[in-house]
Amino acid sequence: MLSKNKIKHISSLKIGKFRRIFNQFLLEGKKSVLDLLNSDFEIIEIFACDNWINDNCELLKKKNIEVQKVTEKELSRISTQKTPNEVLAIVKTPQDKLIPNDVFVGLCIVLDEIKNPGNLGTIIRTADWFGIENIICSENSVDVYNPKVVQATMGSITKVKVYYTQLIEFLSSKPKEIKIFGAVLEGENIYKTQLAENALILIGNESQGISKELLPLIDEKISIPEGVKNFPSNAESLNASIATAIICSEFQRKKITGKAN
Amino acid sequence: MLSKNKIKHISSLKIGKFRRIFNQFLLEGKKSVLDLLNSDFEIIEIFACDNWINDNCELLKKKNIEVQKVTEKELSRISTQKTPNEVLAIVKTPQDKLIPNDVFVGLCIVLDEIKNPGNLGTIIRTADWFGIENIICSENSVDVYNPKVVQATMGSITKVKVYYTQLIEFLSSKPKEIKIFGAVLEGENIYKTQLAENALILIGNESQGISKELLPLIDEKISIPEGVKNFPSNAESLNASIATAIICSEFQRKKITGKAN
Repeated sequence: MLSKNKIKHISSLKIGKFRRIFNQFLLEGKKSVLDLLNSDFEIIEIFACDNWINDNCELLKKKNIEVQKVTEKELSRISTQKTPNEVLAIVKTPQDKLIPNDVFVGLCIVLDEIKNPGNLGTIIRTADWFGIENIICSENSVDVYNPKVVQATMGSITKVKVYYTQLIEFLSSKPKEIKIFGAVLEGENIYKTQLAENALILIGNESQGISKELLPLIDEKISIPEGVKNFPSNAESLNASIATAIICSEFQRKKITGKAN
Repeated sequence: MLSKNKIKHISSLKIGKFRRIFNQFLLEGKKSVLDLLNSDFEIIEIFACDNWINDNCELLKKKNIEVQKVTEKELSRISTQKTPNEVLAIVKTPQDKLIPNDVFVGLCIVLDEIKNPGNLGTIIRTADWFGIENIICSENSVDVYNPKVVQATMGSITKVKVYYTQLIEFLSSKPKEIKIFGAVLEGENIYKTQLAENALILIGNESQGISKELLPLIDEKISIPEGVKNFPSNAESLNASIATAIICSEFQRKKITGKAN
């Protein structure tokens, strides 16, 4: 049986302030918790239904992890999901420090004030797909340990490193040979732009785009061209996670095919 | 002042069953309602705050549309949004009938059991950006007039036509020269596949992918390749709206640049 104090503690972790106080966050669902078990993340406690425990008893033994058995009713009481999925974990927030030189290898996504949790989570999942290991967020971006972000990553939160920092300082500190490609509405057609294997991809806020003070730091302004239309479009822009994914895909295409454009 | 009956009617439209009974849906926010005013959609009623009415009084006069003034408090009572944005409209559901020959020109997105409202909304917005005028959904897909779908389209709902139909029948009826490109996990590398200007892009359900019975109808199975990785990925797939967008972008790139691959 779950104690009142335990329920209270778990509930508190749905709120950013308490996640920071306890240095803990919640992670849920069969796939994500399995990914967690196979990661270096420190698990504080797992709450799971009978069938999940049965399905994973060998792995749990091997990893020496204790699980608190809960009923489906108890799980739905502590879950952040509408339809809880067998298991919930309390996880220690990793305390990785940003070492700029480590992120200047390969591609790195830089997010300026992404506010929508679904967008950040989807960007993390997309980065994992494309083998991008690091994401740098401005300090006022949405918290990566917000349950909605964690959920949208679909397990990729334990693979991609997400750092928060002062972007002006960070972007100004990059070596000359690493270019900053900034997604703007009126930039060079990305299909025809020469991209790079090591680069920073800068994406702006959902409604405001890239902050004014960061614009001068961009080396190449890039855009995803609108389609030719029989009708005037109502789409003023693409969703931020969609734009990020198309840009990552285009970087990868040029790398794979070895074509300049 | 809003009557109890009016509030009750608006609330009922948050539920699919009542949207179908009344043939009406809700549309909210400054940008979306402005797009609505400039569309052919039939407006039943608009509820707006003072400043929105002042900002749009000329357009409202020109269009001969009456607006019911509401306070911010009243708006938040009827709104489907956490932070309501000045205006809410009741709109007549369009009754367009699918005429297959009309959708076999240019690109058309076919969605097999997309369940997540945010995904469908984002796909509609992306389609609008790329000039794709038609989306065909399987009958068991999420309702396009679900407020979360409408919101995620960011106004594009009044531009892109969304139809629901039996997909086996529809896909079997297409002319031979129109190819069906199906997004699967183990298909041909999309960057290297020869695409087409007129085509159907088939996207499957978020967790199950394309239904078994539709797989034999696909002409070209395509995939977005994973990136080369220093670490094994946790991303088993891309989000459905992300995959759709990358595929649409690749169709457009090949069209714009005139390159076969």
